[in-house]
Amino acid sequence: MIHCFPRRRPCLKLSHHLPSPRKTHTHAPAPEQELLCIFGTGDLGRSLGQRLLQSGYRVVYGSRRPHSCGPLPLGAQATSHEAAAQSAGVVFICIHRGHYDFLETLAPQLEGKVLVDVSNNLKKNIYPEANAEYLQRLIPGAHVVKAFNTLSAWGLQNGPSDANRQVFLCGNSAEAKQAVAEMSTKLGLTVLDKGSLSAARELEDFPLQLFPEWRLPLRVAVGLTAFFFFYLLIRDIIYAYVVQGKDVSFRIMVSLANKVFPIVSLIMLCLCYLPGVIAAFLQLYRGTKYRRFPDWLDRWMLCRKQLGLIALGFAFLHVLYTLVIPIRYYVRFRIAEHTISQIKENTTSVFDTTTAWRADSYYSMGILGFGLFILLGITSLPSVTNALSWREFSFIQSKLGYLTVFFCTFHTYLYGWSRFLNPSSYKWYTPQAYLLSLVVPSLLIVLKLLLLLPCVDRSLIRIRQGWERNDPEDSSAKALLP
Amino acid sequence: MIHCFPRRRPCLKLSHHLPSPRKTHTHAPAPEQELLCIFGTGDLGRSLGQRLLQSGYRVVYGSRRPHSCGPLPLGAQATSHEAAAQSAGVVFICIHRGHYDFLETLAPQLEGKVLVDVSNNLKKNIYPEANAEYLQRLIPGAHVVKAFNTLSAWGLQNGPSDANRQVFLCGNSAEAKQAVAEMSTKLGLTVLDKGSLSAARELEDFPLQLFPEWRLPLRVAVGLTAFFFFYLLIRDIIYAYVVQGKDVSFRIMVSLANKVFPIVSLIMLCLCYLPGVIAAFLQLYRGTKYRRFPDWLDRWMLCRKQLGLIALGFAFLHVLYTLVIPIRYYVRFRIAEHTISQIKENTTSVFDTTTAWRADSYYSMGILGFGLFILLGITSLPSVTNALSWREFSFIQSKLGYLTVFFCTFHTYLYGWSRFLNPSSYKWYTPQAYLLSLVVPSLLIVLKLLLLLPCVDRSLIRIRQGWERNDPEDSSAKALLP
Amino acid sequence: MIHCFPRRRPCLKLSHHLPSPRKTHTHAPAPEQELLCIFGTGDLGRSLGQRLLQSGYRVVYGSRRPHSCGPLPLGAQATSHEAAAQSAGVVFICIHRGHYDFLETLAPQLEGKVLVDVSNNLKKNIYPEANAEYLQRLIPGAHVVKAFNTLSAWGLQNGPSDANRQVFLCGNSAEAKQAVAEMSTKLGLTVLDKGSLSAARELEDFPLQLFPEWRLPLRVAVGLTAFFFFYLLIRDIIYAYVVQGKDVSFRIMVSLANKVFPIVSLIMLCLCYLPGVIAAFLQLYRGTKYRRFPDWLDRWMLCRKQLGLIALGFAFLHVLYTLVIPIRYYVRFRIAEHTISQIKENTTSVFDTTTAWRADSYYSMGILGFGLFILLGITSLPSVTNALSWREFSFIQSKLGYLTVFFCTFHTYLYGWSRFLNPSSYKWYTPQAYLLSLVVPSLLIVLKLLLLLPCVDRSLIRIRQGWERNDPEDSSAKALLP
Repeated sequence: MIHCFPRRRPCLKLSHHLPSPRKTHTHAPAPEQELLCIFGTGDLGRSLGQRLLQSGYRVVYGSRRPHSCGPLPLGAQATSHEAAAQSAGVVFICIHRGHYDFLETLAPQLEGKVLVDVSNNLKKNIYPEANAEYLQRLIPGAHVVKAFNTLSAWGLQNGPSDANRQVFLCGNSAEAKQAVAEMSTKLGLTVLDKGSLSAARELEDFPLQLFPEWRLPLRVAVGLTAFFFFYLLIRDIIYAYVVQGKDVSFRIMVSLANKVFPIVSLIMLCLCYLPGVIAAFLQLYRGTKYRRFPDWLDRWMLCRKQLGLIALGFAFLHVLYTLVIPIRYYVRFRIAEHTISQIKENTTSVFDTTTAWRADSYYSMGILGFGLFILLGITSLPSVTNALSWREFSFIQSKLGYLTVFFCTFHTYLYGWSRFLNPSSYKWYTPQAYLLSLVVPSLLIVLKLLLLLPCVDRSLIRIRQGWERNDPEDSSAKALLP
Repeated sequence: MIHCFPRRRPCLKLSHHLPSPRKTHTHAPAPEQELLCIFGTGDLGRSLGQRLLQSGYRVVYGSRRPHSCGPLPLGAQATSHEAAAQSAGVVFICIHRGHYDFLETLAPQLEGKVLVDVSNNLKKNIYPEANAEYLQRLIPGAHVVKAFNTLSAWGLQNGPSDANRQVFLCGNSAEAKQAVAEMSTKLGLTVLDKGSLSAARELEDFPLQLFPEWRLPLRVAVGLTAFFFFYLLIRDIIYAYVVQGKDVSFRIMVSLANKVFPIVSLIMLCLCYLPGVIAAFLQLYRGTKYRRFPDWLDRWMLCRKQLGLIALGFAFLHVLYTLVIPIRYYVRFRIAEHTISQIKENTTSVFDTTTAWRADSYYSMGILGFGLFILLGITSLPSVTNALSWREFSFIQSKLGYLTVFFCTFHTYLYGWSRFLNPSSYKWYTPQAYLLSLVVPSLLIVLKLLLLLPCVDRSLIRIRQGWERNDPEDSSAKALLP
Repeated sequence: MIHCFPRRRPCLKLSHHLPSPRKTHTHAPAPEQELLCIFGTGDLGRSLGQRLLQSGYRVVYGSRRPHSCGPLPLGAQATSHEAAAQSAGVVFICIHRGHYDFLETLAPQLEGKVLVDVSNNLKKNIYPEANAEYLQRLIPGAHVVKAFNTLSAWGLQNGPSDANRQVFLCGNSAEAKQAVAEMSTKLGLTVLDKGSLSAARELEDFPLQLFPEWRLPLRVAVGLTAFFFFYLLIRDIIYAYVVQGKDVSFRIMVSLANKVFPIVSLIMLCLCYLPGVIAAFLQLYRGTKYRRFPDWLDRWMLCRKQLGLIALGFAFLHVLYTLVIPIRYYVRFRIAEHTISQIKENTTSVFDTTTAWRADSYYSMGILGFGLFILLGITSLPSVTNALSWREFSFIQSKLGYLTVFFCTFHTYLYGWSRFLNPSSYKWYTPQAYLLSLVVPSLLIVLKLLLLLPCVDRSLIRIRQGWERNDPEDSSAKALLP
């Protein structure tokens, strides 16, 4: 919501020191200065006009009130809709869909023109048809092209270096699309043609989408977090209250959180590598890489990056919750209590080298795993990913990724150590939560080790290079390995 | 300063394995190979020449000493200034402004040519006029275009993938600008026309600017830091020395810093969201979004991102200063002292569940707030921002932003708890610093909650969709809500 | 390895809702729709075809089995290799080099055509000549252009916003290169011409390179880490075992790591700034900036960014290892032991303000240094670097960089304090490791301070502006300063 303001303001400021392109041609006549028309003097209309003027076009605005339509970019003219439409071959429709109906009266003037629909809606599916299709229906004689709607007014003004420079366009007329594509190129943007006007709905939904690829991973994260939260609540808090009559509910805030976060993080990290292993086994079983994976595996594989990044977020919280331990009131109280009881009972605990080894290895594995995890996260940043060659990206995400899985799993095993042998840890016959969290990682590591066996590895490489065990016509399943 | 070296060296190396484009046309004659002239064989001249050669142009250098001008890109020729100028239609002036005067003697050869001024100065405002304007004055018969000065020699050599690909240009001749723009496009760069040659000064100031948009936020940060530092110095160190006669000056290094950083961070985080709320109230009051905000609000809104990032930096330092607490000598000494005194006086402190709840909630809120804050920071990275749709960016910066504000404010309230009731905390009648830090956040949250009231929210959305309470001509202020 | 899957799958999905461009031209005939031919229906062939179709080209596939070649992008035709080659002027060779030999039989059909070789190999140097050169040798009558091989099928499909948009191309025919360059521009890519076909090997090695610029820094890091690990192993673990008979081997996991990481980090941070200082002295000595640096200095300077980033990674690990100290079993045991011994012996240690000052300053310097170091790391992210002006980047990397060096060196001096005076710290006559780590930083700071002397600074600036002490012909070495 706060984003609305910057979109509008610099428009007015910039226009002060941007001279009209018409004034500047003192030395030579302009070789070609196409006149473009913009309907609508709102934020996007003004920004678009300014950018077009900067790129050497002439711009005329069509407005209901040409003389009081507010501040326009310097060098632009404003006139009535009719006059503006008649003067130019291309008309940008920068008005809300709600006001499209008046355009019907301009149908004669717009006949044969290229109409560029840049509109967006506030929500998905509030109209039965896409804005651009509605516009085409209102003025059947015009060539409607849907374009620019994924750009922000802000991005247009500040040049493409500050914003995504990709323009998606669609329309039924190839000529009209060509004209808009050439214009976009002059504006320093790149064009991706998405086909006929029936793709307009898809384009109009782009700016409205809210993390579509994050939904499944977020649901998995919420589900796992809820499950482990209640599981630990029952084992740690309710059990203590019911069986031992102690109120340790304060442990929810840090101790419980610091069990839930690492567990969910480890599981989600492994969920990010598991589909690749499953796909490899499927390819081995089928003997070809040319058959589609089942839909669930497909969707799983497409959200691996998101699974990994959520896991990293949880690991980060786990680190903070762990480091905060020694300043907790509860921990300081217990340490002091322990020291005092040692004094009073005159007992001396003996230093145990094995425990020191185990504890220090546990911390060291966790730190190294977290460090690698952060590295994986940094290479997931778009600009870093783009700077890597395919082999480099694959090395980091695969080799270093599995190393991260190994460190983190080993860290969890060291945490557990011999706890699982202790019968008292099976409160109400439930296993400790860390044991549950080790199921997926252990499975993943075993499967991955199987794939690294030389004979399996060789078959897989051959399949991925395009080799097929069966003739493509004959798809009867055969033995696992050739 | 160290940056100077890489700019020069790879030039020489690359040129070894880049064959002359002329040699390569063994199969077919080149369809068109425009000859371009470069004056100056410095870093930028050589890099530019190499890039032009790679893009299929022929290049001739104009030099005082054509036979000993050092290593040139393979395939380029060097000759006298006169001969070079005469042979090409476009001349790149890659020499320091200090040596422009000799160009006057070449005026006949440069008559009617396009002169591309790529020069930069070492400081702002050392010359009365822009370099390009000076050049135009020296050779009035030429068409001077200012361009490429914002690119580094380094970026030119390594291709635009490693550098900003935006070329700003300005000039009085539209034809000359067109020629340079087409050349830039061939070089894989995008062009933004900034108008007539009078914009040259602005372009020449670009590479010299030092964080212009960071100045105001940095001043705010320094001001707040200084104020709270001295405030706490007086209350914590000087008060203890004067009233209690204790020297606790060592607390400056960690304890004091760990109060100043979180306080300034919280205030600056809220200063980043406050202008949006003020602007919303202003729009409600005015009943339109089409009137300019006052200048101070404008400037405030344009530096919100910077305010937020500085706040994040301070929050990061606060986290480190907090986590380092338990290894401090002072803290360890005090804990041991406390334990020993408990033993000696044979007292046992009783575990207080409320304190445990409060302390753990305090840490938990802080950790979650910091985690969200880091997320906000990551989405401020240019490449991540560009990958987000408008709605996604708005969701994160607005919704998650306010959640961060809430967590951090709540964290501070939990820190305070009932301390403000303690009369001894009002040393020298001053309130505790954390109380001061809560003023802005509390105000922000109250104002934001007011804006979320359904009736206010509805009015605001209508205004932001373009609805106006008053006719634009009639700007008399009316009641706050319609 | 897991990366293989996403490359293939979305291809099939996307093609479902991408209508054929031919179907869409219901309103106007296409102005020009060039027909292109693709040999090979693998991942890259299909992705390339889809992208070409989206950009308005017509596409025909040449296939051994035109009727069963699997799912093709909608709108593409498939026919025999002969027919496909004959119908188009440009043929993309998207098949493995291993199958190139059959193309020889198509030599008559391919005569005079532009052949675009997009192939990559699995390893470097497995064939005596580049794939594109081999292809040219097979079909001497065709114009082979090497291009697109650095793009991934994934990147082609999803548009250049998701991937590197740089196309490298090379070839012997300027006309053929021109044709491919124009095509690339239409696809929204930018072109960098790398010269004749002899550059094909270089282009084919691009996607196979594995962090070439990271090798030297990583070797330095591994060497330093190994040296200090064994040095500390001998001094801390083996000495204790041999001389004092104590087994403190558990210290390897955290205590030893937490000495090695900061030491290597500090040295590598300084190694990142040292070559700049050396180069400055070399320029002062030579009196010119126009002579090449020795090769070792050249290579050193080109990997400064990598040196710095590895140092940052080690500093990050150092921070985590430090913060984990108070939850270590060993540390808790020792603190309790210390408290108990104080009670038993009824001694009270006196609070030492100097120690408190030193310890807190030590932590504070470390935290501030690490904070600045993180800032340096963030500005090294490609998208952040690109958003900075040259002066801003130089300010951060140079000024803030030296401030980081200063903080970190001071942090280490404070760590040492008076330890070096203690004779017992010279176990087996070796100095403490921290003393060794201070050699390079101290040297760097002294040299840098020398360079900041006004007279030296002035000479250096003059030299870097192009001034030369000697005539370039006369390169006899003179005194250090003019």
